[in-house]
Amino acid sequence: MTLQPIPKTMRALMKPTAAPGMEMREVPVPHIGATDVLVAVDTASVCGTDLHIFHWDEWAQARIKPPYIPGHEFCGTVAAVGNLVQGVSVGDFVSAEMHVACGHCLQCRSGQAHVCQFVKILGVDADGAFANYVRIPASNIWKLDPAIPRDFGSLFDPFGNAVHTVLSGPIAGQTVAVTGCGPIGLFSIAVARACGAARIFAIEPNATRRDLAKQLGADVLLNPSNANLEQQVMDATHGNGVDVLLEMSGHPSAIRQGFRLLRMGGRASLLGIPSRPVELDLANALIFKGATVHGINGRKMYETWYQAEALIRDRGVDLSPVITHRLPLDRFDEAMHLLENGEASKILLTVRQ
Amino acid sequence: MTLQPIPKTMRALMKPTAAPGMEMREVPVPHIGATDVLVAVDTASVCGTDLHIFHWDEWAQARIKPPYIPGHEFCGTVAAVGNLVQGVSVGDFVSAEMHVACGHCLQCRSGQAHVCQFVKILGVDADGAFANYVRIPASNIWKLDPAIPRDFGSLFDPFGNAVHTVLSGPIAGQTVAVTGCGPIGLFSIAVARACGAARIFAIEPNATRRDLAKQLGADVLLNPSNANLEQQVMDATHGNGVDVLLEMSGHPSAIRQGFRLLRMGGRASLLGIPSRPVELDLANALIFKGATVHGINGRKMYETWYQAEALIRDRGVDLSPVITHRLPLDRFDEAMHLLENGEASKILLTVRQ
Amino acid sequence: MTLQPIPKTMRALMKPTAAPGMEMREVPVPHIGATDVLVAVDTASVCGTDLHIFHWDEWAQARIKPPYIPGHEFCGTVAAVGNLVQGVSVGDFVSAEMHVACGHCLQCRSGQAHVCQFVKILGVDADGAFANYVRIPASNIWKLDPAIPRDFGSLFDPFGNAVHTVLSGPIAGQTVAVTGCGPIGLFSIAVARACGAARIFAIEPNATRRDLAKQLGADVLLNPSNANLEQQVMDATHGNGVDVLLEMSGHPSAIRQGFRLLRMGGRASLLGIPSRPVELDLANALIFKGATVHGINGRKMYETWYQAEALIRDRGVDLSPVITHRLPLDRFDEAMHLLENGEASKILLTVRQ
Amino acid sequence: MTLQPIPKTMRALMKPTAAPGMEMREVPVPHIGATDVLVAVDTASVCGTDLHIFHWDEWAQARIKPPYIPGHEFCGTVAAVGNLVQGVSVGDFVSAEMHVACGHCLQCRSGQAHVCQFVKILGVDADGAFANYVRIPASNIWKLDPAIPRDFGSLFDPFGNAVHTVLSGPIAGQTVAVTGCGPIGLFSIAVARACGAARIFAIEPNATRRDLAKQLGADVLLNPSNANLEQQVMDATHGNGVDVLLEMSGHPSAIRQGFRLLRMGGRASLLGIPSRPVELDLANALIFKGATVHGINGRKMYETWYQAEALIRDRGVDLSPVITHRLPLDRFDEAMHLLENGEASKILLTVRQ
Repeated sequence: MTLQPIPKTMRALMKPTAAPGMEMREVPVPHIGATDVLVAVDTASVCGTDLHIFHWDEWAQARIKPPYIPGHEFCGTVAAVGNLVQGVSVGDFVSAEMHVACGHCLQCRSGQAHVCQFVKILGVDADGAFANYVRIPASNIWKLDPAIPRDFGSLFDPFGNAVHTVLSGPIAGQTVAVTGCGPIGLFSIAVARACGAARIFAIEPNATRRDLAKQLGADVLLNPSNANLEQQVMDATHGNGVDVLLEMSGHPSAIRQGFRLLRMGGRASLLGIPSRPVELDLANALIFKGATVHGINGRKMYETWYQAEALIRDRGVDLSPVITHRLPLDRFDEAMHLLENGEASKILLTVRQ
Repeated sequence: MTLQPIPKTMRALMKPTAAPGMEMREVPVPHIGATDVLVAVDTASVCGTDLHIFHWDEWAQARIKPPYIPGHEFCGTVAAVGNLVQGVSVGDFVSAEMHVACGHCLQCRSGQAHVCQFVKILGVDADGAFANYVRIPASNIWKLDPAIPRDFGSLFDPFGNAVHTVLSGPIAGQTVAVTGCGPIGLFSIAVARACGAARIFAIEPNATRRDLAKQLGADVLLNPSNANLEQQVMDATHGNGVDVLLEMSGHPSAIRQGFRLLRMGGRASLLGIPSRPVELDLANALIFKGATVHGINGRKMYETWYQAEALIRDRGVDLSPVITHRLPLDRFDEAMHLLENGEASKILLTVRQ
Repeated sequence: MTLQPIPKTMRALMKPTAAPGMEMREVPVPHIGATDVLVAVDTASVCGTDLHIFHWDEWAQARIKPPYIPGHEFCGTVAAVGNLVQGVSVGDFVSAEMHVACGHCLQCRSGQAHVCQFVKILGVDADGAFANYVRIPASNIWKLDPAIPRDFGSLFDPFGNAVHTVLSGPIAGQTVAVTGCGPIGLFSIAVARACGAARIFAIEPNATRRDLAKQLGADVLLNPSNANLEQQVMDATHGNGVDVLLEMSGHPSAIRQGFRLLRMGGRASLLGIPSRPVELDLANALIFKGATVHGINGRKMYETWYQAEALIRDRGVDLSPVITHRLPLDRFDEAMHLLENGEASKILLTVRQ
Repeated sequence: MTLQPIPKTMRALMKPTAAPGMEMREVPVPHIGATDVLVAVDTASVCGTDLHIFHWDEWAQARIKPPYIPGHEFCGTVAAVGNLVQGVSVGDFVSAEMHVACGHCLQCRSGQAHVCQFVKILGVDADGAFANYVRIPASNIWKLDPAIPRDFGSLFDPFGNAVHTVLSGPIAGQTVAVTGCGPIGLFSIAVARACGAARIFAIEPNATRRDLAKQLGADVLLNPSNANLEQQVMDATHGNGVDVLLEMSGHPSAIRQGFRLLRMGGRASLLGIPSRPVELDLANALIFKGATVHGINGRKMYETWYQAEALIRDRGVDLSPVITHRLPLDRFDEAMHLLENGEASKILLTVRQ
């Protein structure tokens, strides 16, 4: 096949300094090592994490080391492979697991690489995909089945978060509350629905997001400002509460409410990241209740990817309602603004020229 | 509410003697004890087990003690309740778990009542539901949600077998082979589909049943007489084989083929009952493969019933294609004949007058 | 066999009014219903809960309805059985599960009776065992194997808490931190040890309790006031942290420290009850860590009882170091005082005359 | 540190041709690649598989490609490392996982590398450890903690088989039958004992092995030729049968008997390899019983290794009774003879000069 020759330099959206903002720069195309792959980025999507980095908030100041290239949700075409790479070829259309696990720690050696002690996240701790090219270790590449709609390629990362969260425990025939309907919350509704959840309660203050939740398959839409919310859920579950809580907001009050809605013996999977410690009534929320709680980080490597692929390809899970905007990479300012204002759900940034 | 007064006698389809056949008889309506419920049977359905009893085969001769009333799949209206019964009322429309567990053995006391050592099955070991009235311990009653289509009421027993089989391990995103498409096999296809199975291979020699498998949601229909079957499944699973085998036939060759189709590290759930010992290449079918095998008996009490209810009521799982015939109870001879010839899948016998 | 005739009245340690204290009273022997058992109490032991009730603290004021008889850890001899009781006979030496589950709710019908929505706890919500006789539903009776040391009979309740906590996840070959070495913490050390835990860190401020922890099988004794504690645990676990946290204290700082010690991907089982909401860094304690957290309530009915029996009878788990005092029932004031001052671990009250 | 310089040639016990027997040869020391390690073998132990290879039976004829060096149980000292190797150093005392997984298949990418579809076993499919030096991929190296008795180093492979088998399901508080007391059966007794098994029944025709079973911790020793065996196990388990079957023999009659001993709802883990298909009453052995069966292959990578290390190092599991003989490598003929005659359990071959 004929691929474009690889240039010496490329356009990249950089975090240039330890200050708010990002900017487009011309930078060298990365060199790849023997076990790496170079991918020509087609599309990258914007995550809430990128917004934190853009605004240079407290978390970003502690974690991010500028100058570097953010962006960890993407798809593209393999442009070059290192000389020890097997099973990935130039021309493959791919996405990638951007959590690069160390391969040596207890977690990596016992089936828990998603919580590697020494993980580096491309796009957070090292150069990412907001650029024409990105370097990825070959073992982290996920080849996209041609039957997957091309638009969904960059969404495997957040969709995989949702799959990991929903499938961290039984879901078939279970009632479910999803607290927070950002993109991952919305995806989790679609996954729960596709996997036989009994009845899905979407809890979200933003009306536009509640509409999206409906499109993704939520059965009941609830506004947390509604004083009767808890009674409504109890009434709709024969007084039991929900079997499963999927916490996607990271908001303290949503977390507390979610646990109040959880039935005795239920399961809570927590993905949303609170920005500071949360006061929680552990006795009643969790202990007396005999609840099981799963902290969710990333995607299981690579069980989650197989599941995500199967749900989209074989069961037709449709991510398209979540894609609210498409912009070229250099209109990133506009993208950040749309996210900030809650006007957008998932924004695809077109990178390929 | 006004229920008919309970008569002294009733019509019942009996197994009168230790010989082939059944016959309609006028018999006393059963008396109920303090913790029992009397149900006026609305509909009963015919199970393969009933055919064994009808024909008085080897299994039946060893297990069945005539005279008695067969029939273990039914729904009806509660006509009377014992004086210690709580939570079940006259007029409730119900089905029942016909495996009456002892309540005292290790299994009953540790969450495994479905494999009670001293179980008695109503309709097999004691009087069942092929009659105007049936006596059931109150704790075995399952109240049917009004949102459940009335026709599906008698099918909770075999549908529950399917739910128990499919959900005995992970199913979301998994490729599945179902060997044998009798009613439970067909139901298992519907359950797997509703619970996010990736791709479902239905393996069945009878063309009519394969058509039903298609209606219930199978993705690929295969005739075991097809010499390329195994290669087709391998090709369709990237050479892996299937993640999950649901064995519903009890036929030795189907069991052996099913295990050959199972991928390394896969899960096999066996519900079909072979009529004699089976020669199996344990080393390759199971041990080297690191497979997990679940023997499936009955329904979990009552997790399976909750799951079955949710899948029908909330996710719209449709059992109606499996109901191929409806006959009045006294045309049981015709029903047995239809089943025997493979012309019928599930036959509903109308009992209410 | 010859049992004493059952008298009309008995001595009971009562909570007579909504105020601090308890007192010995002469009260009627309870009548039993058809499915109940009357047990002549041999020994009762004192739980921290009883101390709350004695002192009439906030929790007690909200939950307890005097006058009634406390006491929920006991053993004794069956003195009478109701006329529908099977499998329990006069003369049997027994203990009992004092959580009386409703039998009808979702939890009770799906293998989670230990978190029954409508549970009543004998000795908390209804008359308990600080008396010559106690009435128990027959299904809650646990017959004590004669091979079990008689002294351990009243300890199945708290020992069962420990068994439930430890065995709520994998334990063999796992490193374990136990935060809080009251009786249940101590028992959990013995259970973890008997079940193959790799290395057990006992964290407890009270030196006497640390000595007991050593006797029960802890490998490393740590005082939470030690500023190097966390570093020591990290060093002893190759920098990983512990695989399993068993939280037995309910103290906010111990909970927070326990989670800091927990490795990425670890399991925390929480049994200690905080008296008010706890501020917890959910992001780092739990979510990024991909931890699994189990709230633990009571004992699984009756899996935990079988496990507890096996560990004591067959593997010789020795509870005796935890029994620090034996007193007659009417010296309850002294018992409460000893517990309050941290001088005692488990106190057995002798009830039989 | 000072290691011997690596010579050009070495002594190796070879399978030289497609015929019975093995012989000592002088051969080149293997070259290592960038991600490999060269280990100077200290001790190798003999597995039943080696006996099959020695005798050139049907299985060996189908699998083995002479000339090559057998031997897959060993320990030794790292003599050289490839230039990309991290975390393994010259001088480390190590053993290794000899199942070399492909790293690319579904199983390898989803936490099931122990059932890799394309596994190569060093010592079976490629050169192994019956030699002065062996080449191992660095990622398969297991560094032996200095606290592990040196003699146990070569036994991690078969001990790991036992650990994998025993811990493939719950074991604490469970009654266990072990059918077949070769080395792995014996190790499984020690593991079950260390992990809280309630009562262990060792079933083995050879009296010497039964004696070893006693030393390893079996509670009841049974000869399968004893006509009362099944009744004895039933009596000792209150008529229930055992909770767990660990099948270590591969003998059809032992497999069938093991399943008859298994309780309703029990777990069977099968490791012994039958040499041909086995006739099994699936209906009664497995399906009606609601049993769970695990096929066991190799060791989980590397969960099993961590567990094995912890049980030996921290809980003092003692493998020494199983080591019945020590011989220099060139007395391999004698070793094969001892194994063949059932006079030996595990034989250590000393390789270091």
